[in-house]
Amino acid sequence: MLKRYLPILTWLPGYSRDDLTNDAIAAAVVTIMLIPQGMAYAMLAGLPPQAGLYGAILPLLIYAIFGTSRPLAVGPVAVVALMTAASAGAVATAGSAEFHYAALWLALLSGALMLLMGVFRLGFVANFLSHPVISGFITAAGILIAASQLRHILGAPIGGKTLPQVIPSIFTNLDSINLVTVILSAALLVFLFWSRKGAAPLLQRYGFKPDMAKLLAKTALLVAVVVSTLLTWILGLNGWGGVAIVGDIPRGLPEFGLPPMDLGVIQILLVPAIMIAIVGYVESISIAQTLAAKKRQSVNPDNELIALGLANLGAGISNAMPVTGGLSRTIVNYDAGVSTPAAGAMTALSIGAAIMVLTPLMYYLPSATLAAIIIVAVLTLLDFRALPRTWAYSRADGAAMAATMLVTLTMGVEQGLLAGVGLSLGLFLFRTSRPHMAVVGQVAGTEHFRNVARHKVVTDPAVFAIRVDESLYFPNARALEDRIVQTLSDHPDLRHVVLQCTAVNYIDASALESLEAINTRLKDGGVTFHLSEVKGPVMDQLSRGHFLADLTGEVFLTQFDAMAKLSPELTRACRSEDRCDTLLRAS
Amino acid sequence: MLKRYLPILTWLPGYSRDDLTNDAIAAAVVTIMLIPQGMAYAMLAGLPPQAGLYGAILPLLIYAIFGTSRPLAVGPVAVVALMTAASAGAVATAGSAEFHYAALWLALLSGALMLLMGVFRLGFVANFLSHPVISGFITAAGILIAASQLRHILGAPIGGKTLPQVIPSIFTNLDSINLVTVILSAALLVFLFWSRKGAAPLLQRYGFKPDMAKLLAKTALLVAVVVSTLLTWILGLNGWGGVAIVGDIPRGLPEFGLPPMDLGVIQILLVPAIMIAIVGYVESISIAQTLAAKKRQSVNPDNELIALGLANLGAGISNAMPVTGGLSRTIVNYDAGVSTPAAGAMTALSIGAAIMVLTPLMYYLPSATLAAIIIVAVLTLLDFRALPRTWAYSRADGAAMAATMLVTLTMGVEQGLLAGVGLSLGLFLFRTSRPHMAVVGQVAGTEHFRNVARHKVVTDPAVFAIRVDESLYFPNARALEDRIVQTLSDHPDLRHVVLQCTAVNYIDASALESLEAINTRLKDGGVTFHLSEVKGPVMDQLSRGHFLADLTGEVFLTQFDAMAKLSPELTRACRSEDRCDTLLRAS
Repeated sequence: MLKRYLPILTWLPGYSRDDLTNDAIAAAVVTIMLIPQGMAYAMLAGLPPQAGLYGAILPLLIYAIFGTSRPLAVGPVAVVALMTAASAGAVATAGSAEFHYAALWLALLSGALMLLMGVFRLGFVANFLSHPVISGFITAAGILIAASQLRHILGAPIGGKTLPQVIPSIFTNLDSINLVTVILSAALLVFLFWSRKGAAPLLQRYGFKPDMAKLLAKTALLVAVVVSTLLTWILGLNGWGGVAIVGDIPRGLPEFGLPPMDLGVIQILLVPAIMIAIVGYVESISIAQTLAAKKRQSVNPDNELIALGLANLGAGISNAMPVTGGLSRTIVNYDAGVSTPAAGAMTALSIGAAIMVLTPLMYYLPSATLAAIIIVAVLTLLDFRALPRTWAYSRADGAAMAATMLVTLTMGVEQGLLAGVGLSLGLFLFRTSRPHMAVVGQVAGTEHFRNVARHKVVTDPAVFAIRVDESLYFPNARALEDRIVQTLSDHPDLRHVVLQCTAVNYIDASALESLEAINTRLKDGGVTFHLSEVKGPVMDQLSRGHFLADLTGEVFLTQFDAMAKLSPELTRACRSEDRCDTLLRAS
Repeated sequence: MLKRYLPILTWLPGYSRDDLTNDAIAAAVVTIMLIPQGMAYAMLAGLPPQAGLYGAILPLLIYAIFGTSRPLAVGPVAVVALMTAASAGAVATAGSAEFHYAALWLALLSGALMLLMGVFRLGFVANFLSHPVISGFITAAGILIAASQLRHILGAPIGGKTLPQVIPSIFTNLDSINLVTVILSAALLVFLFWSRKGAAPLLQRYGFKPDMAKLLAKTALLVAVVVSTLLTWILGLNGWGGVAIVGDIPRGLPEFGLPPMDLGVIQILLVPAIMIAIVGYVESISIAQTLAAKKRQSVNPDNELIALGLANLGAGISNAMPVTGGLSRTIVNYDAGVSTPAAGAMTALSIGAAIMVLTPLMYYLPSATLAAIIIVAVLTLLDFRALPRTWAYSRADGAAMAATMLVTLTMGVEQGLLAGVGLSLGLFLFRTSRPHMAVVGQVAGTEHFRNVARHKVVTDPAVFAIRVDESLYFPNARALEDRIVQTLSDHPDLRHVVLQCTAVNYIDASALESLEAINTRLKDGGVTFHLSEVKGPVMDQLSRGHFLADLTGEVFLTQFDAMAKLSPELTRACRSEDRCDTLLRAS
């Protein structure tokens, strides 16, 4: 019971020296990535750099206690930072104290929502974000993130939250582009791009073992930070060159406490907080589950919601920003051989130490360095081939993905997500409202009944046998009724209708009334109505109403039983293919 | 082609003298009901009495040309009148010119919407109004309608649109109740109630044939109108008695033209117009289809939308009110032996003649008479047994019905409908997000595989065979993934997973990614993944992606084939029940 709510108890008692070594190495690598990334994502969110560092302390300690994924590296991530910027931007100006309060309330609200979803086991809500919508949203968000960093890369005051705002802003600001910043950015981007694929082989050539080379390559971020900071300091790029720098970062640990409460603002932030909670959870659980499966470990979705919820509450009371499990650092953590969530706690302690010691050294860190780190990080998010691939597989899914991308890019992140979810639910309901219905006949020489349109089958004109390939519920209840009523008026010589229920998993009250109406209408027309192959749970349900008592026909175990009774000669004859042919030729 | 858009061409060329006789009799009976009902429903909608009469002229002529239901009697109906009152009341005060303009715009907007839905074959939208929601809504609307007439029945200024408003208003107005009105109302209510069941047998006893007696009984409304008007006139009840009367009704046909346009008002009326369109359509099509089936005739839903849409546009430009096919008059029309929609046109002409001649005679008609007619009419709408019946059949449907009733009664008709639709969609999505999954095993002595929880079956611990009783799409995609991942971490000795797809009718892109993820995760864990009994269309769809190429296992035609390959000894042995038992005892 205690373990259910405190997953730390599942691993801490058996913690070994090997675990300690593994976790310490992984924590060191993650820390080296997290210091620049934390500051960069804070900048992306429109917050001071320390907000990103604070987001890597308390939340990580909390996750280590409540989380069930061993490699998951919690902290500030790019997509959530972009959503924070967009949502907080709706109530305050980036850089103001009110803006940071809004970001903290987003962390608190989304944390509380995750916690509630976890406690009440409502994690399934996240399923309504379909894969194509998530994929389209993340690609579009990646583009918006890269676009938002152009101001730092070019050193010009390019503004705007959507492409129709950013693109004209580039052209009106062409004059104010800072050449020194552009050269620095270009060098950093080239180095960081190269390091992703080129650093590890180079290090191997210099005698490092493959694993070690791969880990060392992850220090490229740190190298970029150190080299660009030193260059700026030594050459005075921020003075004559006009290169923007990070400047003062407060030294020491965050202060704790709730941000000032403004109920009007909180009300506006509620919907964005729901989205941040769901997107954050989906991003985190996907990585956690993928990696857990590789080691046959398991991740508990409800526990993950609770852990991420508490981590965000922690972020909200420690002057940080919304956090979740991030893709890149989690993979680095996993590759570095992390053993338990203790690595997260060690990372948090290292970051805490870094804030107390290193912040003065970051005074000359150029904003362009952080922007370059963000751009290189989000490139892994972009997947342009997903759209044609999804469209080829399913038009509905492709349309939902395209709408999500288009609306996100042109109108904003919230609108994009809402459009995607709305369209995919709409198309889903539209599809279930038009179920596939197959008129079935007997495959000559067998007891099988298949679709008359796809197979060479035998049918009796006096018996209309139809199979509905969907559960019967209100969006499609009338479809079956319409079809049977239509058939009734088209075929005056009809005597029996048999509904084959192989694929019917549920019949709701609307569908039950439709079945009753079908029964009555057929009865009025002198036609009997039968069911076949009704599943056990559906039969249980039907027996709760009076439909079975009113049914003019029977409920048959199989379609063959039904036809053997309703059209005995033809059906029995057709078990033999030869006799069937003879019979058909004679008629 | 022409017949597709002008259904009148299907019956007019063959119109016979018999048809003429049948239609004329039916039209006479319907006209006698429609004059008092039209005025009563106009009063219910908060409109002058002539609006109801005008609603029985042009719309009926239009429906006769475009409608496909032979007995359907179009015109003002109670539920739509109540919805009109509620919606127009949101933008103007009942009785004002602006209020009537709003009602006309509601007719025009809902007419245009029905027309569009018909032309673009979007009638399926109406299916999202589930039966329990409609049933709950109509009962609640019936109660609200009866409550709204208390002011006329008691002669006191009782106000309010919902029960929490009306009930206190009764008590605060106890002093102003008019005794003469109460006595008159009571007499009318008793007479009208009695006439529904008692008039026909009485007439039969006086020598009328059963059919004729039934038709004559329908003149009870007319008798109530004539007697109460004469009484009021002769005794001067409106003077010393304080009985409210209808007063002046303009003589002559309606003037045609668009009501004044106010874009702000039209915007507010759009959502109510959608609801009036859908409720009106659902009410009308249900009756039309029920009666058509009795005579093996057919009703075309798209044509019905077009016909009702044009009828409402006609109502909107002729100073009338929103109309649709009404239950009570349609049944009377049908019982009177109506033959073609020409009966509707004849009714329209009779009403036109009545307006030119009879309106001065209605000056002394008491409002209480119209209120009594409304109350007796809506009693047929109330179905209090539906709630316990629906709840017993399905908790979800019962909850949706209860919510619709409760919200309609306490907050209003629009809110009630929205709450019902929202809740039923929500519960539907919730259910599909948690599909029924059955672990299956072989029924000893057969080739059948059934649920291990319901049947005595044989399973192989190295093979996990699971059947999902739902199509795989985004709301439930993760459920299967979670289940299999859980199984993988619970059973380290697992070698194969077989997914039996009997009930899977569709696999969307999210579910495909989930299947790919399952495949990858199982592969990482050294387990192969197989499918069995995949339907043709689903197989076609899967072959469009690369899933089948990546699949570590096979796609088997049947579950038996799968098990015969993956666990050959056990599976083949278990075709014989005895050998199966021996084998199991040995292991």
